Amino acid sequence: MSKKIAILGASGYTGAELVRIIATHPDMEIVALSGDRKAGMAMREVFPFLRHLDLPNLVRIEEIDFADVDLAFCALPHATSQAVISKLPKDLKIVDLSADFRLRDVDEYEKWYGKPHSVPEMQGEAVYGLTEFYREEIKAARLVAGTGCNAMTGQFALTPLVSAGVIDLDDIIIDLKTGVSGAGRSLKENLLHAELSEGTHAYAVGSVHRHLAEFDQEFSKAAGQDVRVQFTPHLIPANRGILATVYVKGDAEAVYETLAAAYQNETFVEVLPYGEAPSTRHIRGSNFCHIGVVADRRAGRVIVIAALDNLMKGSSGQAIQNANLMLGLDENAGLMLAPVFP
Amino acid sequence: MSKKIAILGASGYTGAELVRIIATHPDMEIVALSGDRKAGMAMREVFPFLRHLDLPNLVRIEEIDFADVDLAFCALPHATSQAVISKLPKDLKIVDLSADFRLRDVDEYEKWYGKPHSVPEMQGEAVYGLTEFYREEIKAARLVAGTGCNAMTGQFALTPLVSAGVIDLDDIIIDLKTGVSGAGRSLKENLLHAELSEGTHAYAVGSVHRHLAEFDQEFSKAAGQDVRVQFTPHLIPANRGILATVYVKGDAEAVYETLAAAYQNETFVEVLPYGEAPSTRHIRGSNFCHIGVVADRRAGRVIVIAALDNLMKGSSGQAIQNANLMLGLDENAGLMLAPVFP
Amino acid sequence: MSKKIAILGASGYTGAELVRIIATHPDMEIVALSGDRKAGMAMREVFPFLRHLDLPNLVRIEEIDFADVDLAFCALPHATSQAVISKLPKDLKIVDLSADFRLRDVDEYEKWYGKPHSVPEMQGEAVYGLTEFYREEIKAARLVAGTGCNAMTGQFALTPLVSAGVIDLDDIIIDLKTGVSGAGRSLKENLLHAELSEGTHAYAVGSVHRHLAEFDQEFSKAAGQDVRVQFTPHLIPANRGILATVYVKGDAEAVYETLAAAYQNETFVEVLPYGEAPSTRHIRGSNFCHIGVVADRRAGRVIVIAALDNLMKGSSGQAIQNANLMLGLDENAGLMLAPVFP
Amino acid sequence: MSKKIAILGASGYTGAELVRIIATHPDMEIVALSGDRKAGMAMREVFPFLRHLDLPNLVRIEEIDFADVDLAFCALPHATSQAVISKLPKDLKIVDLSADFRLRDVDEYEKWYGKPHSVPEMQGEAVYGLTEFYREEIKAARLVAGTGCNAMTGQFALTPLVSAGVIDLDDIIIDLKTGVSGAGRSLKENLLHAELSEGTHAYAVGSVHRHLAEFDQEFSKAAGQDVRVQFTPHLIPANRGILATVYVKGDAEAVYETLAAAYQNETFVEVLPYGEAPSTRHIRGSNFCHIGVVADRRAGRVIVIAALDNLMKGSSGQAIQNANLMLGLDENAGLMLAPVFP
Repeated sequence: MSKKIAILGASGYTGAELVRIIATHPDMEIVALSGDRKAGMAMREVFPFLRHLDLPNLVRIEEIDFADVDLAFCALPHATSQAVISKLPKDLKIVDLSADFRLRDVDEYEKWYGKPHSVPEMQGEAVYGLTEFYREEIKAARLVAGTGCNAMTGQFALTPLVSAGVIDLDDIIIDLKTGVSGAGRSLKENLLHAELSEGTHAYAVGSVHRHLAEFDQEFSKAAGQDVRVQFTPHLIPANRGILATVYVKGDAEAVYETLAAAYQNETFVEVLPYGEAPSTRHIRGSNFCHIGVVADRRAGRVIVIAALDNLMKGSSGQAIQNANLMLGLDENAGLMLAPVFP
Repeated sequence: MSKKIAILGASGYTGAELVRIIATHPDMEIVALSGDRKAGMAMREVFPFLRHLDLPNLVRIEEIDFADVDLAFCALPHATSQAVISKLPKDLKIVDLSADFRLRDVDEYEKWYGKPHSVPEMQGEAVYGLTEFYREEIKAARLVAGTGCNAMTGQFALTPLVSAGVIDLDDIIIDLKTGVSGAGRSLKENLLHAELSEGTHAYAVGSVHRHLAEFDQEFSKAAGQDVRVQFTPHLIPANRGILATVYVKGDAEAVYETLAAAYQNETFVEVLPYGEAPSTRHIRGSNFCHIGVVADRRAGRVIVIAALDNLMKGSSGQAIQNANLMLGLDENAGLMLAPVFP
Repeated sequence: MSKKIAILGASGYTGAELVRIIATHPDMEIVALSGDRKAGMAMREVFPFLRHLDLPNLVRIEEIDFADVDLAFCALPHATSQAVISKLPKDLKIVDLSADFRLRDVDEYEKWYGKPHSVPEMQGEAVYGLTEFYREEIKAARLVAGTGCNAMTGQFALTPLVSAGVIDLDDIIIDLKTGVSGAGRSLKENLLHAELSEGTHAYAVGSVHRHLAEFDQEFSKAAGQDVRVQFTPHLIPANRGILATVYVKGDAEAVYETLAAAYQNETFVEVLPYGEAPSTRHIRGSNFCHIGVVADRRAGRVIVIAALDNLMKGSSGQAIQNANLMLGLDENAGLMLAPVFP
Repeated sequence: MSKKIAILGASGYTGAELVRIIATHPDMEIVALSGDRKAGMAMREVFPFLRHLDLPNLVRIEEIDFADVDLAFCALPHATSQAVISKLPKDLKIVDLSADFRLRDVDEYEKWYGKPHSVPEMQGEAVYGLTEFYREEIKAARLVAGTGCNAMTGQFALTPLVSAGVIDLDDIIIDLKTGVSGAGRSLKENLLHAELSEGTHAYAVGSVHRHLAEFDQEFSKAAGQDVRVQFTPHLIPANRGILATVYVKGDAEAVYETLAAAYQNETFVEVLPYGEAPSTRHIRGSNFCHIGVVADRRAGRVIVIAALDNLMKGSSGQAIQNANLMLGLDENAGLMLAPVFP
């Protein structure tokens, strides 16, 4: 019997992507969709690409009867998520896609997000939702905090290397290129087609992007010591896709072997043959992450490149993967959609 | 038990799209892939986006044992298709995606394609593969000829109107905008990113595009008299998607009612609420066709707009839909993939 | 000695394009730039691409001393333009880029723009700014109303044909494709890169776009009788460029000869060899308009296609061309910039 | 009186860009254009965007009378350039845009380009064409070798820092993003719109790109010791523009002051206010290079970002700048074209 799903914040891109995936998921059924500013509208009015689906109309969160719900995805902005989730039933399974429960140290949260966490007591309950590294905890969790899409891409490239001690922890540079949908459906001048197409630029330069909080937390945990990477994101004129080019110091073959071993049993994270580089085009629309390892001409320098779709593996796909685990379903259910190329 | 499928010409975009669909099709299994120039290569080398799939290597057609095959898709260039199909086993079910068997009159074939048809006797056997209009014939067919993607889009907008006699048959204009993947993976200067992006132009202007042969054949059949439309395709900087803006003379409400009635039981062809216009973005990557009807400010003039994905509904999706019928499967099997947006 | 120029509304795309052109104009010098909401800012903060220029800061219009100004470009939204222009010195030469003074009949203005014209007495003074057709009036004008970019493209394709009586005035269809910068720098969801890229759709379907008011006015004037065309604009994923595909009935050679004769002495409007079709890519960033004429397979049907850059010839370039005439300068001064390709 | 210019290899993008610039250059006149495979064609057939210009037809190089030519631009592929240039008159001024004369050490040429240099004796005569660093030598040169577009971008960001000794020479990483026109008008599968749009990937990973030869040569010369940087180029879906994100170790303010001082008198290289990052969109179509300097959160780490248009400053614009110097013209003549935005 299908699991009953609510999506809070269904009028944004990650909410819509959840619907897209669940549309062909064998074991999930959407019973409620919320979207406060668009409450009362049919989903097909907000996202005409979903018009073939028989979906409930958007409502306000207060209108949802959570007694009928097996699991809620919360695809709301940070800060709002805390407020909403703190009022949901205490036994409701929740996958949160916001930043609100990613940081175990609420001081770090305040430092990076600029205001105090309003429900610090719930932070302890949340499991960090990077499935491949927290699988067992996620199975047992009630509240899972989805990883930041940039943070995830960097962690897939780096966490096994940091854990294994095969790279210099003091010299890690993540140069990341991201498509525009990661910024959401928000009305900002720099997201207009005329402003964004046909060019590229770096933003949050100087390692000030909020996803660094996740890098700091997770890499330091993996290393057992403080690790502070450099991280520069760039916006590219594509809707989907993140490519993280990571510069590390270590032995190239050791780096390759460590990553290959770490992901050898993973369905969604694939290490390419040694020396090959991935492309975001080859994972677009899918839950796959491709990782390439190439030795630099200078011995002891290695380039690790990871590619994933920010809306799928980087957000809603991972959320479904976590929900599958939390609901006792096949982890891969609904997620084997092939990439869309060209 | 899964049906065993061969794809001839798997190294092009329509071949790859067949693989993409079959990847999550519940009742099909790929047993052979051919690609003469790339014989011996793994599919993941030709299309790295398919690397998560366990697929047979590309071989030459002669190497395939068709005794094991339930149905073959033929995704080869026109002319080559005739030559290949004429040598396949006479009881093998075939869906051809080329232009070779679309025209019932071999003289018309020669006129539009510039050389005589080499197996005119097989032409009689082929069924025109526009599923929504030839469903019963396709169920019984051995050889089905997939429709041209532009030709299909125009027919979805027009055929019910031509049949019903609600429009002026002498004044039909199809102004069509198509993405670039319809031209295939061929090395042509005008298909380079630097040549194609950031602009648009018309091609085959003056109603000389080969898909007119299909319009002539099908509209004349539907009308019971000769119909000759005007047709101007334009290339736009998008990979997927066709939008046909069709100008007709007739009563707007009659036009709307006729189309709504024609498609009311169709899963994949949806007529939007009266007065709404479709977007190619809302069907990208899916098997859906959206149709809009709007009255012009001048009484008796109507604009009908149809949108579909040229690689899915316009080609490989339709081919799967036809194969489902020929193999006795659920017509929609494997085809309910939601569009990918954004 | 350089003419002193003010640009009112310099924080939008057409304002910035005026600055771009004047940057290499031999006889113009910018002495004032206004931008109410961005008053006090340097132009390089609003448009970093202009940072190499030594420009006055943005001010409020009231702060400008028009005694020092030879000519003002008004690049403000419609309605605002009326209010502003009515208060400018009565002897100041003005090129208005808005819709406010394009329609000679103020009732038509109210009908299409939804509210009464506030300074109907000034409407009589304004000259319609389509340089190639109103050159002598523009030379003598104090106030010139820049043409709508879509309206201009259609007129270049059609006005000589309407005047000459070589086409059926009852059956004219303009199917137009436009890039996104025509919509300006406004924060609308449908102008976001993620919403607009990789697809196309029609808007203002049914001949309801406001530029029809200009078509009605100008074609009726040219014909000496009421002419009502059909007009469907489409948005394409490109920043600049308009392509108008125009369907007419008449003799193809007569159509070609009429257009060739009309533009034979024009620098900026070029009729391509008979049978060739233009591309927006070939006029991008320039003041040129390319026109192609192709006969349809059906005798008596002709396709005329016109391409221009909406920000240059379609707006700011034409404005400079008009200003050159009004100021007694060489009409082409500053406008011979070659297109940018690729 | 205008200088008489020949362009050898005018059928490629850099050749066309030279024509575009010269179209509004006050002191240059094109007297000959060559294009072996397209000899006999009019330039407007090869590049319709240049149709408004009165240009000589393409001819074979042997047909050009160089007695009438003041300077020849050679925009041919490497290897071909050597062969052609060695046969040109020995007193003809030449700006070569290929890689053939960039490397002073012919062994390095053979190592990176895979075959021996055929005219090593001419190598000694050639001046490396990075105008801002070799201005005086270029003024006196007969043969100038245009810099590689990627190599130039990295050098603008780094050479003053390497010379001044303000950064650690052992830890320099150049992560570069480039538009597609740098690859030329060549028919390669990965340059097709359908393959390239909507994504990104790294190529020549591992510091194996040929432009490293220029980095090695110039940085080692500037440092007075061997310098070997890491360099990873990425292809992005844009036609023009290079963004080099450079990671160095040093004091951020010293880095900023060094760059600001180095370029304070340069027209075309502008250092942005401390802490700002450039965008390729703000230099598109122009000869300007924007450089930004940002301190990392970790003391002693600095990010330097440089942006330029690969076809303009990165190739043909620089070539004109050098030609201006060689011909005794104003260095900036014809090059003050403002960027094209949006």
